[in-house]
Amino acid sequence: MSDIDNNTPDTSEDDGRDARHKARMARKKEVVDAKISAAQTERGVIVITTGNGKGKSSSGFGMVVRAMGHGMRTGVVQFIKGAIPSGEEMFLQRFSEECEFHVMGEGYTWETQDRARDVAKADAAWDIARRMLRDPAIGLVLFDELNIALKLHYLDVEQVIADLRARPPMQHVVITGRGAPPALVEAADTVTEMTPVKHAFQQGIKAQRGVEM
Amino acid sequence: MSDIDNNTPDTSEDDGRDARHKARMARKKEVVDAKISAAQTERGVIVITTGNGKGKSSSGFGMVVRAMGHGMRTGVVQFIKGAIPSGEEMFLQRFSEECEFHVMGEGYTWETQDRARDVAKADAAWDIARRMLRDPAIGLVLFDELNIALKLHYLDVEQVIADLRARPPMQHVVITGRGAPPALVEAADTVTEMTPVKHAFQQGIKAQRGVEM
Repeated sequence: MSDIDNNTPDTSEDDGRDARHKARMARKKEVVDAKISAAQTERGVIVITTGNGKGKSSSGFGMVVRAMGHGMRTGVVQFIKGAIPSGEEMFLQRFSEECEFHVMGEGYTWETQDRARDVAKADAAWDIARRMLRDPAIGLVLFDELNIALKLHYLDVEQVIADLRARPPMQHVVITGRGAPPALVEAADTVTEMTPVKHAFQQGIKAQRGVEM
Repeated sequence: MSDIDNNTPDTSEDDGRDARHKARMARKKEVVDAKISAAQTERGVIVITTGNGKGKSSSGFGMVVRAMGHGMRTGVVQFIKGAIPSGEEMFLQRFSEECEFHVMGEGYTWETQDRARDVAKADAAWDIARRMLRDPAIGLVLFDELNIALKLHYLDVEQVIADLRARPPMQHVVITGRGAPPALVEAADTVTEMTPVKHAFQQGIKAQRGVEM
């Protein structure tokens, strides 16, 4: 915030700075309040986190936890990862009443090297996802790494979008993974591109429990 | 993935496509495996999620859940939000043994419009954060919206970096919020910029429980 001059410890300027801060924050509050009044539609939303940066899956799991905090039932389908139980899986397994958790696939596609088997797994995973999308008792679903399955054409994007559109009106859907297809971005309400600025891995640091897995 | 031709349902091409897939994935596995072998350092990392896109805080909370899944003790300090209990707070309050949770501040700075009070709250929050940074029993800490407090010069970035550097060697730190200061980015191991592609709010949709709060 270049408009805030706080480089000097000169306390004699504090009154003026505090007054400017108050005036600027009052203007900001007017803008924010007006936007909040304008946004009155309540319905389930489709949220996509994509891009090559770290944080896509963890943001999806954060939303699952947030929803559970509000007493909502949730569902998770992991489309690609899963050969190794992740921290999220181990944690959410404690809450089978609140969170229905399915891990599909057998790890990354470069581990299996078997397209036909990957497609069959993706189809089976989507069957479970579709059942969740028909259940109004589930308030939020997370389809983790679904974008990868779509990018690799393991699933048909038009069929996926049709199933998403037919879901209960208040149900939220969070979809993660690199390379979200344009048609899915078009169908979504909120889309975030996550871009790596730097990554510990590039500096020779091993994937760390709790952070990467 | 423009190199995958899957627009035709022509099954006679399946064998060739599957073979090409297998060869490409085998090459990819070599590259990935080599990178994994090269990354052998094990130590606590500093992860920053910044930018204007949605997903920064939820990705931090996802990493907290991930760490708890591995049996790690965690700590959370929320630096700005907190006037309204969030879904995360309500959820994580169930796990006081595993996650020490502190919400500081009284909502957004444009709600308080009182700089002196905000600075005092930020100082008090950093005192709690510093205590966590001295506790080797805590495996991962999340300082949610710390970047905002730094951007507004509520806290001194050099002091914050010094306290981060003095932490136990295996402790992970996740820092979220828009406008991460360059010195903090420099000190971090993994940094992700989250950019909004679109947001439901722009389409008149109210902030939804489980998604935005």
